[in-house]
Amino acid sequence: MNTDVVNTDVNETKTLKVALLGCGNVGSQVARILLEDADTLAARTGARLELVGIGVRTIDAPRDVELPRELFTTDSESLVAGADLVIELMGGIEPARSLILSAVRHGACVVTGNKALLAQDGPTLYEEADKAGVQLSYEAAVAGAIPILRPIRDSLSGDRITRVLGIVNGTTNFILDQMDSTGAQFEDALAEAQRLGYAEADPTADVEGHDAAAKAAILAALSFHTRFSLDDVYCEGITKVSATDIAAAKDAGFVIKLLAIAEKLTDDAGDEGVSVRVHPTLLPREHPLAAVRGAFNAVFVEAENAGELMFYGQGAGGTPTASAVLGDLVSAARRIVLGGPGRTETTTGHVPALPISASRTSYHVGLRVADQPGVLARIAQVFSDNGVSIELFRQSISSADQSAELRIVTHRASEADLAATVASISQLDVVQDVTSVLRVEGV
Amino acid sequence: MNTDVVNTDVNETKTLKVALLGCGNVGSQVARILLEDADTLAARTGARLELVGIGVRTIDAPRDVELPRELFTTDSESLVAGADLVIELMGGIEPARSLILSAVRHGACVVTGNKALLAQDGPTLYEEADKAGVQLSYEAAVAGAIPILRPIRDSLSGDRITRVLGIVNGTTNFILDQMDSTGAQFEDALAEAQRLGYAEADPTADVEGHDAAAKAAILAALSFHTRFSLDDVYCEGITKVSATDIAAAKDAGFVIKLLAIAEKLTDDAGDEGVSVRVHPTLLPREHPLAAVRGAFNAVFVEAENAGELMFYGQGAGGTPTASAVLGDLVSAARRIVLGGPGRTETTTGHVPALPISASRTSYHVGLRVADQPGVLARIAQVFSDNGVSIELFRQSISSADQSAELRIVTHRASEADLAATVASISQLDVVQDVTSVLRVEGV
Repeated sequence: MNTDVVNTDVNETKTLKVALLGCGNVGSQVARILLEDADTLAARTGARLELVGIGVRTIDAPRDVELPRELFTTDSESLVAGADLVIELMGGIEPARSLILSAVRHGACVVTGNKALLAQDGPTLYEEADKAGVQLSYEAAVAGAIPILRPIRDSLSGDRITRVLGIVNGTTNFILDQMDSTGAQFEDALAEAQRLGYAEADPTADVEGHDAAAKAAILAALSFHTRFSLDDVYCEGITKVSATDIAAAKDAGFVIKLLAIAEKLTDDAGDEGVSVRVHPTLLPREHPLAAVRGAFNAVFVEAENAGELMFYGQGAGGTPTASAVLGDLVSAARRIVLGGPGRTETTTGHVPALPISASRTSYHVGLRVADQPGVLARIAQVFSDNGVSIELFRQSISSADQSAELRIVTHRASEADLAATVASISQLDVVQDVTSVLRVEGV
Repeated sequence: MNTDVVNTDVNETKTLKVALLGCGNVGSQVARILLEDADTLAARTGARLELVGIGVRTIDAPRDVELPRELFTTDSESLVAGADLVIELMGGIEPARSLILSAVRHGACVVTGNKALLAQDGPTLYEEADKAGVQLSYEAAVAGAIPILRPIRDSLSGDRITRVLGIVNGTTNFILDQMDSTGAQFEDALAEAQRLGYAEADPTADVEGHDAAAKAAILAALSFHTRFSLDDVYCEGITKVSATDIAAAKDAGFVIKLLAIAEKLTDDAGDEGVSVRVHPTLLPREHPLAAVRGAFNAVFVEAENAGELMFYGQGAGGTPTASAVLGDLVSAARRIVLGGPGRTETTTGHVPALPISASRTSYHVGLRVADQPGVLARIAQVFSDNGVSIELFRQSISSADQSAELRIVTHRASEADLAATVASISQLDVVQDVTSVLRVEGV
């Protein structure tokens, strides 16, 4: 007996029509749960959530879950026109964008997991939803099953977020974790991720950081009450991270993670701005994010009053992501049942997005240099000339070719100063190669 | 320039009156933020949140924050009668309970952090709030700054939670962490916690698990959509955890944490129930909760679709807890501004609370036995007779007194079977002492 639905106080007469657009990995699980857990969802919501149709491109495409054939339609536009709640899980820009706008104008609440669309054209969608007085929810768009957007939007609404650091791409976290634990090179770890289904055949969107960048834009917008788009995000992937980088980081007590970062900075004039960026980052091994292994996701939030918070869980996968979609759906449905309009977000702050050159972190710089007297002094002079303070020098000498490996950790410096330092250093005759430049967070 | 409040779309004419009851550690920080961040909060909310008064017992008591004297009053009843939003941070049962009921009946939304009151008499308060169509929010009551109740109530509203494991008391986590990292005895770690302000002069409520038990009842109610009270919670504190227990756990790859646990169990007849309990628990060192150090809190949630989630942050302290209070306040105020009633919780499930004897975990049993042939076999027979399967035996022999220390880890067994096993074992002539019985989770 499932006691979850006994003696409910549900108004059994009320039914809300739900249209699902897209029936891939996540969509098919959402459909399954809507059908299987209908009674529980009705008890939670105060109304029955009736799946009236699934809009797809091809009715007879193979799916993860067996679903009643009569639910499928290729006429998504008609489906949307008759729905109280629309779930968009098609992905991509069009026709997703037009269908969402159509749903909103018909007065339906919309739940979407479409990070690319939100990062590119979110503001238009939010405005239309506000105008229509309907909710547009998108918890599934960032970090899969992890409740992170609602806590930022609601739970932290009386606080000031100062920084967000997120492991928001499971593919790259799996690859970097493999490299860290096995010493594998990037290519081999990627192949392993592909073999296990954690990476796609074309892994570009993940390994180049584009997926994380879209999520960074969404996190930044909610955290700083300001509209940011993908163009505001500096993006660097993990394809250049080598086994040597990982080993050197490990040796120094660090782990390398691909982080989505949004942080508020104040310049010397006291003006505020937000740096939004994605890049491989060194984290101390005792940092809570360092323990996030495999394909898991986590978002670390720093706020003025709350201090440090972390949210951890599964960032992808059909069933976990479907949980986030259904949480949004039930919340929107409760709002409809109880009455009252919804407001999607507040964007009353207008902090500018800052270029990557304005960000300040510590750096871990690897150099191959000639093993001769005076080299350290000359290199240290270049750092000093550019206003970059060195925290740590580490040298290992290879007797084979009379070269030495240098690893330098700096104190916090601006990206611009560090770039100038690296440019000058690479001009020195004693420097054979700048083998790596990596940012450090969490120290 | 604080750009957060430039160009707001705030309706400056609307003002909501906020009454604060209690001005201790958390209350004084809430008052400070309401006054200092008034413009930002107005931008977030769509209305000004005007602190109209602070109800206290003694107007001139010393406080953490300097606040305008004219705000203070000893007439809390009148203060509540004129407020749109009431924040209750007095603690204790009365007069907090009467004032909350009065506020609700006057049509005010209420934010409280009063876990003892909610665990004892929550159902009455929720019913009154529902009847009056106002919101009763209490994020601050569990795990301080960590957004955990809203994610459970809203983000996971389309999922089925199966288990919640929480480190929800910072004092006991600090003490156990000290014991783990320094080898200290309980009494010394407690004294250190008191010296650093992490434990009160009378630490009973924390170290006996009562504080965690109230939070366990609240977490269980929200997770399983059923009303649970403090009486439904089995509670065992940490006063009997010895340095030897900690060392033995460490040696076996475990850490000991005081966990608040709520989990759904199904008996052989297929009937469901919920076990709600607080006790010292062994966790594998690689479990995400094992890394929660010092006075930090974290709540680990397992749900059917979402899988494993963890929420981590500061569980106490005036400023962090004030962040949670203000998140609730802004959310309630937004609801008032936008219109529409609020529903506090859904309790449409009616799963019974189970006694501790119904819970099933692994156990770590320590025995001092005579070092003579046949002892292991006799002990193993007792476990087997009671249906408890042994996963691991570990023996260390002390040649001094011809006794041996045995450490036994069992497979999952019912609390009743384990209790019967321990009772029989302690009757054996070869057993000198049962030195510890500890539950294991996360394996």
